[in-house]
Amino acid sequence: MALTFWFDFTSSYSYLAAMRVEREADAARVPLVWQPFLLGPIFAEAGSGGSPNLAAPAKEAYMWRDIARRAAARGLPFTKPEIFPQRSVAPARATLSLPGPERPAFVRAVFAEVFGRGRNMADEAVLADAARAAGLEPERIAAGAADPDNRAALFAAVEEARRIGVFGAPSFVTSDGEIFWGDDRLADALAWERTGSLPAADLPPPTTANA
Amino acid sequence: MALTFWFDFTSSYSYLAAMRVEREADAARVPLVWQPFLLGPIFAEAGSGGSPNLAAPAKEAYMWRDIARRAAARGLPFTKPEIFPQRSVAPARATLSLPGPERPAFVRAVFAEVFGRGRNMADEAVLADAARAAGLEPERIAAGAADPDNRAALFAAVEEARRIGVFGAPSFVTSDGEIFWGDDRLADALAWERTGSLPAADLPPPTTANA
Repeated sequence: MALTFWFDFTSSYSYLAAMRVEREADAARVPLVWQPFLLGPIFAEAGSGGSPNLAAPAKEAYMWRDIARRAAARGLPFTKPEIFPQRSVAPARATLSLPGPERPAFVRAVFAEVFGRGRNMADEAVLADAARAAGLEPERIAAGAADPDNRAALFAAVEEARRIGVFGAPSFVTSDGEIFWGDDRLADALAWERTGSLPAADLPPPTTANA
Repeated sequence: MALTFWFDFTSSYSYLAAMRVEREADAARVPLVWQPFLLGPIFAEAGSGGSPNLAAPAKEAYMWRDIARRAAARGLPFTKPEIFPQRSVAPARATLSLPGPERPAFVRAVFAEVFGRGRNMADEAVLADAARAAGLEPERIAAGAADPDNRAALFAAVEEARRIGVFGAPSFVTSDGEIFWGDDRLADALAWERTGSLPAADLPPPTTANA
């Protein structure tokens, strides 16, 4: 029994989720699986040719504003990356090369480079800095990113995402197969994993006008 | 000073928002403006040709599942409309014909017909039923929907949405021009309207693993 956290390193909202998901899951006593994948092939299959957040200038402007103000509310650094979206295969493969307990610190370190400092994860020096920040040897991360086994594992992850209906990131998938899409659905996902349903909403009472 | 609630009657997440926005705004002591508009022309300009929620089968399936489980948690009836999306010009024009205080009950009544009972708002009998449920004369609603002044007002609303950067629905726009998109951003929008910023996030403390 665990909640699976599906993320793509180039997903801006995956940054917000990655930086809090472990402490939220720990607080809820829900085991967590960190599962990198790639949105690119999934968007390509949908025929949209890219992130729906980039479908219109107003939507992209909103996304950056929304990320910035939410990051500020959480005390997270935020710098809009110079390059966006970025090629995320190398850190995704490197993550898959790590045993579960080593993933969270490395994943957070990569996200911090990209969305905290605005750097490009396709740059080997950036991945090396992330490795060092996570207490890992840069050579080990570079080797993990290059290993054909991890290429195959990443391909399999994309296929699995498609099979279970994951179409965006971050997505949280419960043990019973329920999908919760978006950083703002994390609390719901944790509640569902614990209880198999959503808690009743805490709504204010209707006013007389709410006839 | 007021929060403006931008909605399209054919937007599924606008249903969730419409049924709670007044009581949440009242509880926060934030005045509310109910502003119908049309997503169609905005999606057309973005070149997407329709709702991003319908861009892929997995995304549409998710939307209906997400609406159903959130409606259940709020004690709201939900029936997937047989026709979706629907032509929403008639109820939008009719809403614009009503003075502010008469809008909420009518808007909720239309949404209840469409997403509570699965009916088609383009059917005059459905609008008449919604009018009666809101304590309004069906003839008045039909006349409001047909009035050229309201056609012009709806056109102007779409232009205004475009001008201020509204690209989806529901959107909540604060007095200082901040946009919050999505039913799940209502609490943030109300907080911003009251204080001009988001409250600091209430995060659990990092565990030792969150180095």
